[in-house]
Amino acid sequence: MTNLNPIYNSEELLARAKKVIPNGVYGHQNVAMMNPGVPQFFQKAEGCRLWDVTGKEYIDYLCGYGTNMLGYNYPLVEEAVNQQRKDCDCMTGPSPKMVELAELLVNTVTHCDWAFFAKNGTDATTICVTTARAATRKKKVLAAKVAYHGADPWCTPIPAGVTPEDRAHMIYYKYNDIASFDKAVEQAGDDLAGVIVSAFKHDVFMDQEIPTREFAQHVRKVCDDTGAAMILDEVRAGFRVSLDVSWAKFVGVQPDLSAWCKAIANGHPISFVLGCEKFKTAASQIYSTGSYWFAASPMAAAITTIKEIQRLNLPVMLEKNGMMLRQGLDELAGKYGYELKQTGPAAIPMLLFNKDAIRKKGNFFCTEMLKNGVYFHPWHNMFLSAAHTEDVIVQTLQAADESFAAMQKAGV
Amino acid sequence: MTNLNPIYNSEELLARAKKVIPNGVYGHQNVAMMNPGVPQFFQKAEGCRLWDVTGKEYIDYLCGYGTNMLGYNYPLVEEAVNQQRKDCDCMTGPSPKMVELAELLVNTVTHCDWAFFAKNGTDATTICVTTARAATRKKKVLAAKVAYHGADPWCTPIPAGVTPEDRAHMIYYKYNDIASFDKAVEQAGDDLAGVIVSAFKHDVFMDQEIPTREFAQHVRKVCDDTGAAMILDEVRAGFRVSLDVSWAKFVGVQPDLSAWCKAIANGHPISFVLGCEKFKTAASQIYSTGSYWFAASPMAAAITTIKEIQRLNLPVMLEKNGMMLRQGLDELAGKYGYELKQTGPAAIPMLLFNKDAIRKKGNFFCTEMLKNGVYFHPWHNMFLSAAHTEDVIVQTLQAADESFAAMQKAGV
Repeated sequence: MTNLNPIYNSEELLARAKKVIPNGVYGHQNVAMMNPGVPQFFQKAEGCRLWDVTGKEYIDYLCGYGTNMLGYNYPLVEEAVNQQRKDCDCMTGPSPKMVELAELLVNTVTHCDWAFFAKNGTDATTICVTTARAATRKKKVLAAKVAYHGADPWCTPIPAGVTPEDRAHMIYYKYNDIASFDKAVEQAGDDLAGVIVSAFKHDVFMDQEIPTREFAQHVRKVCDDTGAAMILDEVRAGFRVSLDVSWAKFVGVQPDLSAWCKAIANGHPISFVLGCEKFKTAASQIYSTGSYWFAASPMAAAITTIKEIQRLNLPVMLEKNGMMLRQGLDELAGKYGYELKQTGPAAIPMLLFNKDAIRKKGNFFCTEMLKNGVYFHPWHNMFLSAAHTEDVIVQTLQAADESFAAMQKAGV
Repeated sequence: MTNLNPIYNSEELLARAKKVIPNGVYGHQNVAMMNPGVPQFFQKAEGCRLWDVTGKEYIDYLCGYGTNMLGYNYPLVEEAVNQQRKDCDCMTGPSPKMVELAELLVNTVTHCDWAFFAKNGTDATTICVTTARAATRKKKVLAAKVAYHGADPWCTPIPAGVTPEDRAHMIYYKYNDIASFDKAVEQAGDDLAGVIVSAFKHDVFMDQEIPTREFAQHVRKVCDDTGAAMILDEVRAGFRVSLDVSWAKFVGVQPDLSAWCKAIANGHPISFVLGCEKFKTAASQIYSTGSYWFAASPMAAAITTIKEIQRLNLPVMLEKNGMMLRQGLDELAGKYGYELKQTGPAAIPMLLFNKDAIRKKGNFFCTEMLKNGVYFHPWHNMFLSAAHTEDVIVQTLQAADESFAAMQKAGV
């Protein structure tokens, strides 16, 4: 580990932040719900590594909560952005990069006949829902209970400032539960516009679940039978488990619309909606736009990132290294008498402890991991990148060995 | 003018775009509603100038629909972004730049005690509305008829895919009309959460209007009396007419919450909500976030852009050069027997022709201006940047002279 010079005292910087920013840091990057000592502000990022403002180095298993898939500051992507910025970026109209990116996506993702670019994952899921309603002229949208589809009033997980009408047409089902899904469909009656479903179940605090083939095929059939749009929320999974939609790998099912963000441009700001021909007219009728949505440099970043993901066949590499991490952690846990619950795709791991209702074990373990230079999350899924090589996994497992030993010694 | 080599045939590129993107280009940057010949895709931007894909050069009076205020590719801002990207950009947590930017805003904008950063103007207006509802535990929000506050279901100007419930708690008033405003307040009864109001009236196809002091003070008083949040939508005007909120200049009134985007980081993607202390607790209770919202390089761009706007006292420069353009255009119009309606702040001009209900004159004039190397918009407000110097205005007026002459010759 190569620590850097401290540029701030952590507590002082957070105190300054709390004076001028709600909660100091808001949203998913606020660490207040984790144990004290989790770093809040960072000064440097490179490959799989982060340095906090005190100069301490960490192997980062959050990867920008998924935005970084090739490794931070990946030269090929940064060079594409630099080249693009020399010519143009955010203008009065798009550059040809928008057409090139859309064509690349049409050639890459099976169900995709067209692409619509935005900035947030929430933009993408919202555009999918609006397109579904415009296409069907119906209103009801089904979503899994507690599934995260973004932070707009119709979907934000914390309802402060949200009115009941914002969700008047949302009906909730249980992920992977056909009976619960059918009940929601029945409730929608003849007003079913669409179904939104996560690539896999990745809710905070609980085990992840891969979709069952039976469930996925049932969702597809109901949408085919009713004309409702099948919307796949790929924001967290997209291109991390497959070079196509993740359901192509998991269950062999293609959606009508899919929402993407995070991994697609290695941290450069872009999200997209992909759709099949059937929904193109509706996507042409809705109005959605944003000040920076046509900027060229994130599109150049996306083109380079997607081609590099393809060249490296990155989903396979992430799965392999993720399985090495998972098996290593299981062995170490067993050595010290602990039992882990490691769920979801190996590239997007969730790490919980068995018999740990108040997360005492998970919090203790993650705090020890931080001390040993590894940033693990005690209750949110994590992400691997191309920079999490075998060497890095070995180093991570050494840190885990020490962390389990400290847990055992402390009697946690 | 220095034309560049063509990199695409315009029609061919648009045909390719239409195959893989809804409408070819969607949202505000689609030029389909303007006359044929308006350039859709660009290959280069520098200062106040754009080059389309055929290599033709234009003086651009859209300025990225407002995102560019210092001139495209402004060296000081680009250098700040480059420096920041060397260290870090989009990570698992924010960099100290977030705190520095919030502190700069608190020190710059009178009503601002805290800042909340996002990516789209729509994010900012939506966060304001949600914060108002969370603070007051009331639901009704007043907005001016046809005013543009973004593209989410609660506000998008085209209602395809929108349900009645998305706007169940919106009540509409007429801008600058106290009687109409009071009627909306009465309709809200004891359920008034907030009032959203544009910095000035800037609706497409019609004359712009500066707020009257009487109207603004009345809005402020109603909000004070009822506890409702006064929300100023500064997305289009912010920092272009004042170094404070625009209502500080126009009418001497401060809002509770304000929504900003466009000019604040010279094209780098960031938006923000600014608020007074009274609404900080509510802003801490709502949940809003996005994958790229904590990225450091747009924050570095914003800090440099705002300091440069202050150093140059840019609102004064834009007003001066905008008035030179306005007066010059009026004189030329008179010389050829036309009468213009030039409304709104000189830095954000709207140019319509008198007695031009179907916009025949406006469209003809703008098409001629394009031929003469100037990109004017026939029905959307335009924007000046620091790169629109006196020399550029002189060149623009020469193009206008030729364009009016062609109009007169054609008998339009």
